[in-house]
Amino acid sequence: MYIGLASGFRLERESEYGTPEQNAAVATIVEAVRREGDDALLRYTASFDKVELTPERLRVTQEEIQAAYGFVEQDFLVALRQAAANIRAFHEKQKRNSWMDVSPDGTMLGMVIRPLRRVGLYVPGGKAAYPSSVLMNAIPAKVAGVPEIAMVTPPATGGREGIDPYILVAAAEAGVTEIYRVGGAQAVAALAYGTASIPAVDKICGPGNIYVALAKRAVFGAVDIDSIAGPSEIAVLADDSADPRYVAADMLSQAEHDEMASAVLVTPSEKLAREVEAELKRQVALLPRREIAEKSLEQYGAILLVDDVNAGVDVINKLAPEHLEVMTEDPLELLGRIETAGAIFLGPYSSEPVGDYFAGPNHILPTNGTARFSSPLNVDDFLKKSSLIRYSKEALLRDASGIATLARHEGLEGHARAVEIRLEGGESQ
Amino acid sequence: MYIGLASGFRLERESEYGTPEQNAAVATIVEAVRREGDDALLRYTASFDKVELTPERLRVTQEEIQAAYGFVEQDFLVALRQAAANIRAFHEKQKRNSWMDVSPDGTMLGMVIRPLRRVGLYVPGGKAAYPSSVLMNAIPAKVAGVPEIAMVTPPATGGREGIDPYILVAAAEAGVTEIYRVGGAQAVAALAYGTASIPAVDKICGPGNIYVALAKRAVFGAVDIDSIAGPSEIAVLADDSADPRYVAADMLSQAEHDEMASAVLVTPSEKLAREVEAELKRQVALLPRREIAEKSLEQYGAILLVDDVNAGVDVINKLAPEHLEVMTEDPLELLGRIETAGAIFLGPYSSEPVGDYFAGPNHILPTNGTARFSSPLNVDDFLKKSSLIRYSKEALLRDASGIATLARHEGLEGHARAVEIRLEGGESQ
Repeated sequence: MYIGLASGFRLERESEYGTPEQNAAVATIVEAVRREGDDALLRYTASFDKVELTPERLRVTQEEIQAAYGFVEQDFLVALRQAAANIRAFHEKQKRNSWMDVSPDGTMLGMVIRPLRRVGLYVPGGKAAYPSSVLMNAIPAKVAGVPEIAMVTPPATGGREGIDPYILVAAAEAGVTEIYRVGGAQAVAALAYGTASIPAVDKICGPGNIYVALAKRAVFGAVDIDSIAGPSEIAVLADDSADPRYVAADMLSQAEHDEMASAVLVTPSEKLAREVEAELKRQVALLPRREIAEKSLEQYGAILLVDDVNAGVDVINKLAPEHLEVMTEDPLELLGRIETAGAIFLGPYSSEPVGDYFAGPNHILPTNGTARFSSPLNVDDFLKKSSLIRYSKEALLRDASGIATLARHEGLEGHARAVEIRLEGGESQ
Repeated sequence: MYIGLASGFRLERESEYGTPEQNAAVATIVEAVRREGDDALLRYTASFDKVELTPERLRVTQEEIQAAYGFVEQDFLVALRQAAANIRAFHEKQKRNSWMDVSPDGTMLGMVIRPLRRVGLYVPGGKAAYPSSVLMNAIPAKVAGVPEIAMVTPPATGGREGIDPYILVAAAEAGVTEIYRVGGAQAVAALAYGTASIPAVDKICGPGNIYVALAKRAVFGAVDIDSIAGPSEIAVLADDSADPRYVAADMLSQAEHDEMASAVLVTPSEKLAREVEAELKRQVALLPRREIAEKSLEQYGAILLVDDVNAGVDVINKLAPEHLEVMTEDPLELLGRIETAGAIFLGPYSSEPVGDYFAGPNHILPTNGTARFSSPLNVDDFLKKSSLIRYSKEALLRDASGIATLARHEGLEGHARAVEIRLEGGESQ
């Protein structure tokens, strides 16, 4: 862990572009599914997941989803439903109306805003199957009004066709409309190009391993994709008023995710810095995921000393962290100067897991400094806009010479004539 | 040109990914500028543009911009200013406020919406230097509140350092804050990674040749980029009420852009189909860019016959055209069913050049079927959002067990403890 002046610290983790072998493997799989459809999809599922399926067994049935409800604990279901309700309520506030502007001369200009028609959601299998991520991906699409949300997730390996029941329940609660038991690059290709069993989508979202990430890159253009998520990050901006136990616990809640995760404290208080360091040592020793958290802190953890909280904000704006907690005397005083962070948590009770699971804002956030230009997953990501232009004859008469002047300057005579032909003939018939 | 049933037509143009040689050349240039900064930038400018510059001469001076105003014609300036005012007014309506939701328990949830800090705009040189594109790219960024908009554009080749005065005037009118006389992949790399003379930006927009497009792809991730524009497209949905002269003129206004451009008429009227075919022949013969327009029509033009206008809308939704004109008896009757088009022009007086130059909506639109999931360039493209979460102690007490339940289910004990540590200690001090 780096402890010292902020000027001496740089957080650098390379983005994952895969090895040439991985890229070649993904290109082969994507092309095979594109050409052969279900045949290739089932062949790769048999080969990678050791599960032999027929096209009829690709889609998870309503009965299987019902059975999953019988399996999950009541307290899980209650918590999941409350989280889903909170996420839905927050994202409802992001919705937008189509709008128009009408003029007395009969001109109408506006934007028509509509949901995407069909979205695909990738959900990893095994230990990385997080019900919370299903909610965070699917609910914004549902709120946007996307009528078809198709989820893919690998079957349990070793011949068992089952899907984690917690994932099935989360999908049903979130409003997913179809679930397919396929995973890997082959599932991404199926969503992008469509097969006889899985119709093509317009956008693919959701996390996955390196093969899934490379497949998403490979199909981008044919469909839209969400961002490729990097390892998780937290920065805590705190002064003497902060409780070092809280700061340390929140840093560890990131560090336990992944050895590549980063947890950084930015503070003007040497006292807090010492106390947090001690607390990190004490608390990390008690964590089940101690080894991961220790490696993360060692490689990418830092305690950065700054002159004052304002200098701390400058450091934060350069870091552009995925999560930022502000535990200072008066967090609102600083908010206006905080320019770049995926999510901002204010005050001592806004622990980051509150946002990961429950409060309502999305936990899918820009990583690796991309908060400089990217945003949390939100309803806009599932909407498309069309400009709307209705000109009247009166308006066209008024603007024709300006349009023709600009068109002719750019050497586009046909553009000028398309306007002028309407001036000669009077009515359109 | 294909004339016949819609079912027999497919518009397929491959996206430009460049040759391996072009990709390798771009990778070399980008890496050199990243490592060597201005030195490499000036070296490539000398080599490709045959212009020897010093770092001090990279930036276009205020005097040069003033001189450009003395050069352009008054009618051009008047038209440009009116177009800029219309574009500004339309994009002002796209602006969004940060918002929050406060609860009686002291919880605050919201989104902070801010402009990007610094944006780069590429403007091609030579014949592809379109003042209208400068307005369409720069004004949405300006309206979003981006404080720094840096334009790059190649100097006139052959030792002359000059920039097209019309481009300089358009940049000044649009609110560009800095202009640099560099182009090509080297200019894109300079914007992405920064040099001593050109500070790095957060996002790069604007059209360019294949080297510029490949360079944008190469730096994507380090910075954001806009979409890589494909060749232009228009589809006209028209019935017997349409004037065949207008339909043909508008189709030609696309076809004259580029041999790769596509112009398609979709109609239930055999009479209109015949008349438009004849008008296309008549009008194209009179165009200065006749050869380009003829090639475009021959390769990618079509007149598609459908059973009725509703069937025509289905064809349009599959085509997902960049521009759509609706010249039917009652265009508003169809609008609700038109799902995918970059810009929609309603009625006989809404000729596409109206939108290209003047009405106010953006002319940078999704091409190549990407209207299925992409939108016209708009103010949102220059904004970034941060989630805002302020939990109160009361809210945390209420939600702690739900958060801990979900966290423990996902095997993230540290997340549960970060919440629970706040329950034990009472006040934060």
